Amino acid sequence: MASAPTTDVSDRTNLSIDRSAAASRPVTAVDRRLAAAVQRTIADGPVRLELWDGRRADGAPDRAAGDLLVGDRRALIGLAVNANLYFGEAYIAGRIRIRGSLTEVILALSRSSAANPSRWERATAFVARANDVTAARRNVEHHYDLGNDFYSLWLDPDMVYTCAYYADEAMSLDEAQKAKLDLVCRKLQLRPDETVVEAGCGWGALALHMAREYGVRVRAFNLSGEQLRWARARARREGLDSRVEFIEDDYRNVAGQCDAFVSVGMLEHVGRRSYAALADVLRRTVKRSGGRGLLHFIGRDVPRPLNPWIRRRIFPGAYVPALAEVARDVVAPADMSVVDVENLRLHYARTLAHWSERFAAARERVRAQSGEEFCRTWELYLAGSEAAFRTGWMQLFQVVFAPRESTPPFFTRAPLYSGRGARQ
Amino acid sequence: MASAPTTDVSDRTNLSIDRSAAASRPVTAVDRRLAAAVQRTIADGPVRLELWDGRRADGAPDRAAGDLLVGDRRALIGLAVNANLYFGEAYIAGRIRIRGSLTEVILALSRSSAANPSRWERATAFVARANDVTAARRNVEHHYDLGNDFYSLWLDPDMVYTCAYYADEAMSLDEAQKAKLDLVCRKLQLRPDETVVEAGCGWGALALHMAREYGVRVRAFNLSGEQLRWARARARREGLDSRVEFIEDDYRNVAGQCDAFVSVGMLEHVGRRSYAALADVLRRTVKRSGGRGLLHFIGRDVPRPLNPWIRRRIFPGAYVPALAEVARDVVAPADMSVVDVENLRLHYARTLAHWSERFAAARERVRAQSGEEFCRTWELYLAGSEAAFRTGWMQLFQVVFAPRESTPPFFTRAPLYSGRGARQ
Repeated sequence: MASAPTTDVSDRTNLSIDRSAAASRPVTAVDRRLAAAVQRTIADGPVRLELWDGRRADGAPDRAAGDLLVGDRRALIGLAVNANLYFGEAYIAGRIRIRGSLTEVILALSRSSAANPSRWERATAFVARANDVTAARRNVEHHYDLGNDFYSLWLDPDMVYTCAYYADEAMSLDEAQKAKLDLVCRKLQLRPDETVVEAGCGWGALALHMAREYGVRVRAFNLSGEQLRWARARARREGLDSRVEFIEDDYRNVAGQCDAFVSVGMLEHVGRRSYAALADVLRRTVKRSGGRGLLHFIGRDVPRPLNPWIRRRIFPGAYVPALAEVARDVVAPADMSVVDVENLRLHYARTLAHWSERFAAARERVRAQSGEEFCRTWELYLAGSEAAFRTGWMQLFQVVFAPRESTPPFFTRAPLYSGRGARQ
Repeated sequence: MASAPTTDVSDRTNLSIDRSAAASRPVTAVDRRLAAAVQRTIADGPVRLELWDGRRADGAPDRAAGDLLVGDRRALIGLAVNANLYFGEAYIAGRIRIRGSLTEVILALSRSSAANPSRWERATAFVARANDVTAARRNVEHHYDLGNDFYSLWLDPDMVYTCAYYADEAMSLDEAQKAKLDLVCRKLQLRPDETVVEAGCGWGALALHMAREYGVRVRAFNLSGEQLRWARARARREGLDSRVEFIEDDYRNVAGQCDAFVSVGMLEHVGRRSYAALADVLRRTVKRSGGRGLLHFIGRDVPRPLNPWIRRRIFPGAYVPALAEVARDVVAPADMSVVDVENLRLHYARTLAHWSERFAAARERVRAQSGEEFCRTWELYLAGSEAAFRTGWMQLFQVVFAPRESTPPFFTRAPLYSGRGARQ
């Protein structure tokens, strides 16, 4: 759920200048005034602007989380005119560099934004963009040419590309992804031989966990043939292929009913206009008696349209919803009641930090395969996403629901956390 | 949260006929056809209509959850024409009686309604009405002439008039109310010497629990002088009057800030038009750094206006919101994020069952003080409310929220349920 391809941020011809010439161009008084103006827009954020002559902008604070190194005049003008538009592309091109932690710098800019929304809304919008990209990525065919090998370099061994659950704050990524899979199963209170439909199964980790640990039968839907080949091979290796059916199809084509419906990291790609269709699927698929479901998705506090750049370039129709929209437009029209909602945004921040660490460890291999710009793109998106979840710009909701007249899957939550009732 | 006054259901002059004359009036062929028609509207619901001659309506099932005994022709016509309007009032007047469990009969009618909404929407709307009344009750001055003595006959000793929390299904009402108070405190992660604002404190049980068990300082708002006298006397007896300030005022007049804001069973009375005002209070009152809040309220899956009869007679402005409305119109405009939502509707059903039991045990005393009709009114409302929560017509939500940029009160829920972290 966090990433972006290089191909979609490559339209920066209007930024293309000869870098060595730019870097050697002396800093003028006008440049310094511009730099001071950009520094002022950072307000109290502890980030310092530094120009290509190595000097800080006037007004830069003494202490800072990090420095924005502006490599040339064009990048400076871009920041001054519309940081929202130019920061990301200039960063990826290496025309803006960071001294210190990329995440901390983005975080500082985001917090500045929270304090001064009128000024910083635009300047930190790339943070939102980062997440929108990540949210939108998965369904987009042409991103999958990155391939399973690329993701396996930095995801956990189960290839789970969604927010993990750190039941214990010291957990590793691998442990936390397994803990997430199990938390989802416990919230659904799965019982042996029940039937489950999973919409958007990625590399199949959850489907296989449900079948292996809870003895259920799963129909798992995905549009990516490459992910499914990986998932099917794993199912065969583990002897679970008789219990898990991986289906290369739109989940909306699901036939029949199920005891439990689950979707982790897919709702972001459904798009607002398709919520009614999703509600229809839930209404006709989830058994009215004893059925239940879980949606795990990136959300927001306040509805807002997806950044137009993302909608156009990355994924037409993607949308990160507010919790209220999901309750009103998906759960309620399915004649379901919301049973339980958990906001795991800080778990996603930690997941992203772990992905960044692992990405850094694999950087030389990624760079050898795909180049420096590709690395910088991913680093920016991972760091930007982490900042977005840390600042509360983005939320991560798990929503459990059940048919209105049906008994909800649990009477209290205690069994979900004590181990009692986890396996029935 | 569950009750209704007699005074507000007394407008049944159009039903007033001479009962003894009616009862002695022979059942005609037209009566029997009408009765069969009403029986058909019950469809598959296992409730039998029985007329005043002791004979069942044609089409009545052999097995049933209970019998509706129709005492006279006017009641029969009322049921046939508009059960929604006449059932409750005829029941209270004793012109319709129930053989078997009132709750089970109402439940059966509700379930029939779910299966045949077009027919049964009206006929079981009294269930919704019952809850709307209960939801609306507390702020209405003239209901409080019922007095503390009346409620003390059947509430728990702490006088908690909201949904309890049955941490263990075998808990008594008293234990479950204490468990609820503590669950609220744990969700808020209260720490010694923090400050809490409680909006709508009833008889003060939560405020006193927070101060006694968690060492916080509480400002508790309530408009009912009689409840506050009771609460203040208890605070003095327990030596908590220096830590808990009971304030006879609208909570919107609260000044200053607090670490935690809590409101249990008040949102139903706020009314949709005042959500913006509530959001304003939250925004200016809850500390942006480390602050958090909890709203506990009766909710619905789908927004719908309050029954006009209730709005006019019982409480102008009361409204039972959908979760989506609270998220969108209260939490988001306060610049808060939803952290956690729990639906406790089955706990409210059990609370109401316990209240009904205790009411039955106190019936003779209530009857001696207030009469048969008063007893029947309360019995109907308690039973109707229980049915509404059991069928999912009504929900009970606890919503935890925190300022967007602030660290949420807990990283995982496990400490809320294991005892770890409950007292810090």
